[in-house]
Amino acid sequence: MNAAIRAVVRWGQQLGLEVIGVRHGFAGLISGEHVPLTLRDVGDIIHRGGTILQTARSDRFLTPEGQAEAMATARRLGIEGLVVIGGDGSFRGAKRLIELGLPTVGVPGTIDNDIAGTDVTIGFDTAVNTVVDAINKIRDTATSHDRTFVIEVMGRHSGWIAIVAGLAGGAESILIPEHPLPVEEVCERLKRGFARGKRHSLVVVAEGAGSGFEVGEQIKQRTGFDVRVTVLGHVQRGGAPTASDRVLASQLGARAAEILARGESGKMVGIEHGTVVERDFDDVIGKPKPIPLELVRLAEGLAV
Amino acid sequence: MNAAIRAVVRWGQQLGLEVIGVRHGFAGLISGEHVPLTLRDVGDIIHRGGTILQTARSDRFLTPEGQAEAMATARRLGIEGLVVIGGDGSFRGAKRLIELGLPTVGVPGTIDNDIAGTDVTIGFDTAVNTVVDAINKIRDTATSHDRTFVIEVMGRHSGWIAIVAGLAGGAESILIPEHPLPVEEVCERLKRGFARGKRHSLVVVAEGAGSGFEVGEQIKQRTGFDVRVTVLGHVQRGGAPTASDRVLASQLGARAAEILARGESGKMVGIEHGTVVERDFDDVIGKPKPIPLELVRLAEGLAV
Amino acid sequence: MNAAIRAVVRWGQQLGLEVIGVRHGFAGLISGEHVPLTLRDVGDIIHRGGTILQTARSDRFLTPEGQAEAMATARRLGIEGLVVIGGDGSFRGAKRLIELGLPTVGVPGTIDNDIAGTDVTIGFDTAVNTVVDAINKIRDTATSHDRTFVIEVMGRHSGWIAIVAGLAGGAESILIPEHPLPVEEVCERLKRGFARGKRHSLVVVAEGAGSGFEVGEQIKQRTGFDVRVTVLGHVQRGGAPTASDRVLASQLGARAAEILARGESGKMVGIEHGTVVERDFDDVIGKPKPIPLELVRLAEGLAV
Amino acid sequence: MNAAIRAVVRWGQQLGLEVIGVRHGFAGLISGEHVPLTLRDVGDIIHRGGTILQTARSDRFLTPEGQAEAMATARRLGIEGLVVIGGDGSFRGAKRLIELGLPTVGVPGTIDNDIAGTDVTIGFDTAVNTVVDAINKIRDTATSHDRTFVIEVMGRHSGWIAIVAGLAGGAESILIPEHPLPVEEVCERLKRGFARGKRHSLVVVAEGAGSGFEVGEQIKQRTGFDVRVTVLGHVQRGGAPTASDRVLASQLGARAAEILARGESGKMVGIEHGTVVERDFDDVIGKPKPIPLELVRLAEGLAV
Repeated sequence: MNAAIRAVVRWGQQLGLEVIGVRHGFAGLISGEHVPLTLRDVGDIIHRGGTILQTARSDRFLTPEGQAEAMATARRLGIEGLVVIGGDGSFRGAKRLIELGLPTVGVPGTIDNDIAGTDVTIGFDTAVNTVVDAINKIRDTATSHDRTFVIEVMGRHSGWIAIVAGLAGGAESILIPEHPLPVEEVCERLKRGFARGKRHSLVVVAEGAGSGFEVGEQIKQRTGFDVRVTVLGHVQRGGAPTASDRVLASQLGARAAEILARGESGKMVGIEHGTVVERDFDDVIGKPKPIPLELVRLAEGLAV
Repeated sequence: MNAAIRAVVRWGQQLGLEVIGVRHGFAGLISGEHVPLTLRDVGDIIHRGGTILQTARSDRFLTPEGQAEAMATARRLGIEGLVVIGGDGSFRGAKRLIELGLPTVGVPGTIDNDIAGTDVTIGFDTAVNTVVDAINKIRDTATSHDRTFVIEVMGRHSGWIAIVAGLAGGAESILIPEHPLPVEEVCERLKRGFARGKRHSLVVVAEGAGSGFEVGEQIKQRTGFDVRVTVLGHVQRGGAPTASDRVLASQLGARAAEILARGESGKMVGIEHGTVVERDFDDVIGKPKPIPLELVRLAEGLAV
Repeated sequence: MNAAIRAVVRWGQQLGLEVIGVRHGFAGLISGEHVPLTLRDVGDIIHRGGTILQTARSDRFLTPEGQAEAMATARRLGIEGLVVIGGDGSFRGAKRLIELGLPTVGVPGTIDNDIAGTDVTIGFDTAVNTVVDAINKIRDTATSHDRTFVIEVMGRHSGWIAIVAGLAGGAESILIPEHPLPVEEVCERLKRGFARGKRHSLVVVAEGAGSGFEVGEQIKQRTGFDVRVTVLGHVQRGGAPTASDRVLASQLGARAAEILARGESGKMVGIEHGTVVERDFDDVIGKPKPIPLELVRLAEGLAV
Repeated sequence: MNAAIRAVVRWGQQLGLEVIGVRHGFAGLISGEHVPLTLRDVGDIIHRGGTILQTARSDRFLTPEGQAEAMATARRLGIEGLVVIGGDGSFRGAKRLIELGLPTVGVPGTIDNDIAGTDVTIGFDTAVNTVVDAINKIRDTATSHDRTFVIEVMGRHSGWIAIVAGLAGGAESILIPEHPLPVEEVCERLKRGFARGKRHSLVVVAEGAGSGFEVGEQIKQRTGFDVRVTVLGHVQRGGAPTASDRVLASQLGARAAEILARGESGKMVGIEHGTVVERDFDDVIGKPKPIPLELVRLAEGLAV
């Protein structure tokens, strides 16, 4: 996220914009928590995980009163346009502000990669690499001991992290909400592998497809195998961003500043086919981003 | 472990020893699973996690019959001396073999660091760094969101990983089996911190001091804070070993080969005060390795 | 590369192909160095850097005699189709084999990303992340001391690594062969930054745009600044591959096996717009892959 | 370093001390650049590389006038005691201040590990791990290609980084200033290894034992081997500190605050045999810290 903030500030300044930062998301917009963001303020932040502006949920902003307060603050602070970095919920809020008269542009920033209109969201590549790194480490010990390992990864409604990290990590089975795989079948596969001489296996489970501990318990009961469980949790949300995430954030942040500078609004910036694109909020909000079946088949086919 | 195997092989060969590897621990000693280990066989393994010889539990070896079988195999293979890399259980097995006539030397290899007679065990530094890396990542997101994070780390009977990683990671509270800290007190501390303006906290829990999910649940109920849990599991057992672990493994493996070469037995090699030492198995097996109170106090004092 | 080999083997086997590996590239094809590659042989290699098949240059293969020998070996070994993983030179060799009657498919594997017909080559993302990681570390010390740092990265004919890693790392200046930037201008920029209060700077130099030490020396002489140089060298070629590189290699390797299985030849597989594509060798070999000017401008604009 | 600053502040406050930070070292002490350091100011810094107080060389402080100015500033700011984190040069400065009446305690912080009176200095473990990580990556490609690699590491007067990282990385030859190894002998060894079938080799060179490029050139000329060179430079000075470095820094920083709090001065804190010790500056400044011959022999013996 920091790379996107940096890009908005620096590219914005080149375009003649003055940029301030609103802390703690919509909650901060209501309460007026803001900081000036000059060229120097965004120096040496490109490599930091998290966001210098912090985030927060705001129940109040979901109410018309909260939204009116946010608008009032924006006017008081002289905010003429807003860049919102976040996911589907953030964009819904952004749309509300547009309706109330505040030009707003969206930048897709969520590790879940579940935003339509962009091939990938900021944070996804970093999260996937963190999961793959964990899989690597478990694999080291998996080959030393002969065991089955279950790794629960993030993704309440989406299996993007699970499928991509599972494919990259060489997981034997991947459970995602989009293509539910019955535990019985996972167990059958594990047993077939065992019969063929495979002595250890890795099962990746997206939160939305079940709890790691529950899946592990079921496998243990059905196969009698020794099963160990890892729940990565918020480890997936932090860490120095990968190169790819920083380049993406830089591209999208710069374009978001451009859109506001040319007086437009109501759009999300995204990357498609390697090119920065602009999408109407209406074509993005609430729209699904299905996982290509090809990826699922490839993951299954290579994990024999 | 691989660095220790490499050192036994290469230093052993310099001393005129021929070295073979027994796979799958005592189970492999019973069944005779062995591989030749030449200079080349241990090339390019120093940086790999896990162990090229793999490990396994052996219930059979716990019986007199199993031990007799292991001795028979050792004689058949012409094994004149054995280097056992492992923890307390492995050393108990080693002692049994000595009593049956097989010269054996122990090398302390366990991530838990719970072996007396050595300042540190092989694998501990790597495991601690893995935990600290996870804490770093959680910290990134902790400062962005305002939340309490619980991380469960390994250590069923020992809080070494928890205390050292917690100190290094700047955790607010550390729960270890050796110095149980009631959850009420943890909660009091979290509330005091919150009252002082501290918006996020990290709690590290050693397995032996409670389950991460249970501790998290209790904190949530007592404080009302938003709590998220990570269970690192076997991620802690893998990964490329740190420099310090490789140097230690090289030193201890070389010395173990020396002890056998000079016809001695019944000892564990260790590091004390930066120097390689030799300890009688009897001074090591079943002996506690208490965590210095100084470390606990330092961790508490710095986590204000 | 290992992920690509794994994909060819596993996907190939699903398609009914029997796969063997040729070691040491075309040199090994001449001399007949081959290994069987079963499902198990490619287990636990997806996370390893380098390639299990090793590589080598072969001057002999550049001659008609060498090529004839390679064909003879291929016939003797019963090779009915070949997957060549490499860059432009490898594909030229592949084309020669096709002309001699051996069906061959190319997979773009080079850290330089200088192959047309694919958005990205296998290895590029890993190399860029290694460079960015080095830049991060230098940045830590750059902000502590006040100095100018020069980092020489790979890229004899192409500035892809330099521009992407420089953009992601927040480098102040990036020197690439495609858009030569006179050292005088780099120095002017450094001086302007210094005048504005910028106390440290990072300059990334692609090999093809000059030697890091020479550029460093010139900056020192023209500005009087304290300059330190890093030459990363082959550090960029190794390391566990990133998630993105593994997914790409899996996709391309699988498709390459498919092409041979359906009896086709003369194509390179690539990724364009997130989709696997097939390109005629003639549209790829010797063709340039220019760096988008947009990226260069973005890097410059954000590095104010 | 940040972990040490954090420990001085937090432990100091527990002891009733008020702590301020002097930026840019002795130069900042002369000019009075200081910042308050409260509990919160040192929150979330334990994992950052570099130092939040920055460093600088000060020629002026080497003169009696400069020292008098520093003393005047210290008095003006009400500084009653000083903790100096650094190496031999810093401690010489510290001693001068003591002579002029300012109680001062030293904390050994240098990646070079060349300070007597402590087993290890803050920063050393991190630097060594960075070098070992680079060696790992080069090793990946070394086993794929058949080549000789030279890595130049830091250490102008001391081979500590080279010997420990070389041992941990499994380097074939290690050149350090303390035990000069003629290039002829390095070449002989490389040739012997080649004759035995060893196709790639890693040579680690400490700055003080020669330039990486020069050593590489000599090897190329004497052996005809294909040689590639890496000069890691300041990459070694940055990066998130290892667990071990953070624990050490926490221990030493806390003790330094204690010494000042009990009204003592003129000491360096160090770690010996795992225990924090206090040494008179006179027993430390200008004293050598020789590399144990045992380590050199082990490195040579294991690199056959």
